[in-house]
Amino acid sequence: MSHNHPGPRIGTPLTLARAAILVEGRLDGDGSIQIDGLAPLDEAGPGEMAFLAMKRYARLVGTSSAGAYLVSSEFEHLIPAGAPKVVVDQPYPALRELLSHFNDEGDSTPEVHESAVIGNRVYLGSGVRIEPFVVIEEGASIGDRTRIGSHSVIGSESKVGPDSILHAHVVIYPRSVIGSKVVLHSGVRVGSDGFGYTRIKGVHEKMPHIGRAVIEDDVEIGANTTVDRGSFGDTRVGTGAKIDNLVQVAHNVQVGARSLLAALVGIAGSTRIGKGVWMGGRASAANHLEIGDAARVAFDSTVMRDIKAGDTVSGSPARPHREELRSQANIRRLEKLQKRVEILETGSGDQD
Amino acid sequence: MSHNHPGPRIGTPLTLARAAILVEGRLDGDGSIQIDGLAPLDEAGPGEMAFLAMKRYARLVGTSSAGAYLVSSEFEHLIPAGAPKVVVDQPYPALRELLSHFNDEGDSTPEVHESAVIGNRVYLGSGVRIEPFVVIEEGASIGDRTRIGSHSVIGSESKVGPDSILHAHVVIYPRSVIGSKVVLHSGVRVGSDGFGYTRIKGVHEKMPHIGRAVIEDDVEIGANTTVDRGSFGDTRVGTGAKIDNLVQVAHNVQVGARSLLAALVGIAGSTRIGKGVWMGGRASAANHLEIGDAARVAFDSTVMRDIKAGDTVSGSPARPHREELRSQANIRRLEKLQKRVEILETGSGDQD
Amino acid sequence: MSHNHPGPRIGTPLTLARAAILVEGRLDGDGSIQIDGLAPLDEAGPGEMAFLAMKRYARLVGTSSAGAYLVSSEFEHLIPAGAPKVVVDQPYPALRELLSHFNDEGDSTPEVHESAVIGNRVYLGSGVRIEPFVVIEEGASIGDRTRIGSHSVIGSESKVGPDSILHAHVVIYPRSVIGSKVVLHSGVRVGSDGFGYTRIKGVHEKMPHIGRAVIEDDVEIGANTTVDRGSFGDTRVGTGAKIDNLVQVAHNVQVGARSLLAALVGIAGSTRIGKGVWMGGRASAANHLEIGDAARVAFDSTVMRDIKAGDTVSGSPARPHREELRSQANIRRLEKLQKRVEILETGSGDQD
Repeated sequence: MSHNHPGPRIGTPLTLARAAILVEGRLDGDGSIQIDGLAPLDEAGPGEMAFLAMKRYARLVGTSSAGAYLVSSEFEHLIPAGAPKVVVDQPYPALRELLSHFNDEGDSTPEVHESAVIGNRVYLGSGVRIEPFVVIEEGASIGDRTRIGSHSVIGSESKVGPDSILHAHVVIYPRSVIGSKVVLHSGVRVGSDGFGYTRIKGVHEKMPHIGRAVIEDDVEIGANTTVDRGSFGDTRVGTGAKIDNLVQVAHNVQVGARSLLAALVGIAGSTRIGKGVWMGGRASAANHLEIGDAARVAFDSTVMRDIKAGDTVSGSPARPHREELRSQANIRRLEKLQKRVEILETGSGDQD
Repeated sequence: MSHNHPGPRIGTPLTLARAAILVEGRLDGDGSIQIDGLAPLDEAGPGEMAFLAMKRYARLVGTSSAGAYLVSSEFEHLIPAGAPKVVVDQPYPALRELLSHFNDEGDSTPEVHESAVIGNRVYLGSGVRIEPFVVIEEGASIGDRTRIGSHSVIGSESKVGPDSILHAHVVIYPRSVIGSKVVLHSGVRVGSDGFGYTRIKGVHEKMPHIGRAVIEDDVEIGANTTVDRGSFGDTRVGTGAKIDNLVQVAHNVQVGARSLLAALVGIAGSTRIGKGVWMGGRASAANHLEIGDAARVAFDSTVMRDIKAGDTVSGSPARPHREELRSQANIRRLEKLQKRVEILETGSGDQD
Repeated sequence: MSHNHPGPRIGTPLTLARAAILVEGRLDGDGSIQIDGLAPLDEAGPGEMAFLAMKRYARLVGTSSAGAYLVSSEFEHLIPAGAPKVVVDQPYPALRELLSHFNDEGDSTPEVHESAVIGNRVYLGSGVRIEPFVVIEEGASIGDRTRIGSHSVIGSESKVGPDSILHAHVVIYPRSVIGSKVVLHSGVRVGSDGFGYTRIKGVHEKMPHIGRAVIEDDVEIGANTTVDRGSFGDTRVGTGAKIDNLVQVAHNVQVGARSLLAALVGIAGSTRIGKGVWMGGRASAANHLEIGDAARVAFDSTVMRDIKAGDTVSGSPARPHREELRSQANIRRLEKLQKRVEILETGSGDQD
């Protein structure tokens, strides 16, 4: 099979003029040409629009066969003269407009598939979509227009708000609370037992978990991410927070509103992450810590103590980013330093 | 929807006097007040009991509206005078007693759901609970009173012991062995092929895996954790070991009895972890290593060579914890050291 | 239950002479003895063949009760005199031959299970095996002889090539492309939304993902690994690439042909990995990077800038392996260096 044929066209074509209006951009060139979709600079064909907003990719413009360009005013001069383009000051919101135009929201036709197993005292809102082999356990409730993907399991006494999308193979443990306009991707587990034991007579005895996992409104959680419920009290992911794939959110963790956790991040038990915090991929935080509002934790850093609001940290253990950079530079200079000490020791002025 | 309403009450209330007896603690205050549940210091209401066993959280006592406290004798003096409390010497076992009182074990009513697909020569013990859409393949056996959660798949010729709980969406590959009183959380995969290839004529040819994955008694494994089966010979997780979420246990790894592996730990192929080992979150070990009994591997450390029994290691690559701390201190002092060398070079006595 | 009973015998026994022919090795000893299977040196019984190809395990030979040995010529002298053995120059391809002999391919009987839900316009090739509770959505196509494991979901308009195996609980999002002879393990998610947002009026607005995830021929992907689809343009895993468990492949990542990514690796958005690249366990790469063909990234390293073809890097941030080793040595020598500077400062020759 060829893997290079374009995918099935999605969305409806539009003219370049219409695209310019959609993104509130400046049209430069023939507004009547038709745009079938968007593609990267080195993959775009004559029917497609390419995108340039990072200097790094400018080198690809020369050889691109794109039919038109969406470009930030900053890089307009890098597009070949005469090539049809739409110029904008804020490229990413503009890109988002066009992607939304071509996007395919997936099937949300209201339906309760005959194969679904629905327990007693279950409330189903109006316009819900319940896909094949879904299990909704006793006492759970599903909000209006919410979509529950194939094989997903909604535990007993759980609540899912309206206008949410649970993709296929999501598992919600009992007594969990999921807000409205939440998106959970395949393999997300919400409300699993936390990793808590206490040693009694040499054996690790399990701490029961009577708390809950609470996912507030407008949260999106990526594929195969796990959110444990609280031991007592709740684990909470705040309104508008976005979490990537394969992230661990341990018991009693609090993730503040609008915070972003990238893939493979791990947050240990009871740690509190403020509002608007950014954690890069594979970053982690030990347990019982506080990470202040708007703090930034660099890719692959390890937070071992509290972080003040607004601080940017990096390294393992993480410390203020500037310090970490200085320290790395000092380590690189170590060879020279040893040499300098040798010279002092030999008393020789010979610098070879 | 408000996400702050308390969850459905679980368990039955008890008096403070009864609580004191349960935890074998000292009652201080009115024993007749009713406790509906437990909650963190900053969330507990008048009907709830709060818990204090870490100095870090003492600051929350002043503003807590908890109706009563469970407190370690060490911190008893931090609780406001006159507040009803139960005082214990070992707070965590005591906490566990109370959590167990309020815990909800989940539905274990014996049942074989009509939707389950049960193969030939399958043995089902007495009192098993087989939930919707479970698949049990040919020749597998399920021990007495064991619960198989919705959609879980038990591969052909596999054995699951008695009194175990497999939550929803667990997959057991063929010929695996799961012991008794084992708990596997949603998304656990046991017995998947290991990552083994050999290069033949420039192509990575797969090593067949004829070994098994063996999970011994009293093991708990967290959500979305993977345990590969052996290439030849078995992968083994020993009795009483506890493994957190999103952990990788590669082919032919041995995890010793009562060892603890926290979230996002990765153990590479054929490495042997002794008994009672502790590995912190995101710690990892390269392949073909030995980690001795009772060794401790700190959060986010990387084990690249054998670790002796009882050693505590940290860092990447991991080394004795004291060495690592000293080394970090030396690096922090580098700036000063450079300055000192400069002074020696210039011969100036100027110290600022 | 004893966990030490051998597993059910798989494959058919063979004589040592026959084994020698299979692996094109030199027979030393009685060719008529029967081999029932393979086992590690310290587990093998009289009916089993043990394997020795690493010096590290030589110590186990003395006490092994293996009935025969498969040994690399390099270590032939370590096998007790008179013990029946087969000697080969290339032990791993030979081992693979024997494992293949004893391997059990699993059930591939063509069948479409009655419980499967098959949408409109679905194409099923000849000889496919569709297991219980599979969902194949509208417009998807499944190639000849391909096996779709229990509960797997094939999204609308997706294509799966011939002779592929999707184990239980795989989810393929709509419009994805899976090649031929591909193996996807349980919990693999292909085509999930990438982690892309743009800030508009203080809120993270989601970037629609109109691209696809493309998995080319002869790829194997491990349990619970996630491959996001492209924002625009495709995420691509090239022919013959092998990916281990719990790996994150972000949106618009390109993984070159025959590259190997070990467990818990994370590749951030738009990064391009060349052909024949090796990334060790827990290694990671930041976004928008290029890793050249045949590059090697050591266990747990963090790639923060482009890597040239053929380079071997290690550390966090990753740099040329030799540099990293030198730097670690320098850090170990810091204590001495400080002492030497002290001596220079005091002017004392006292070296104690």
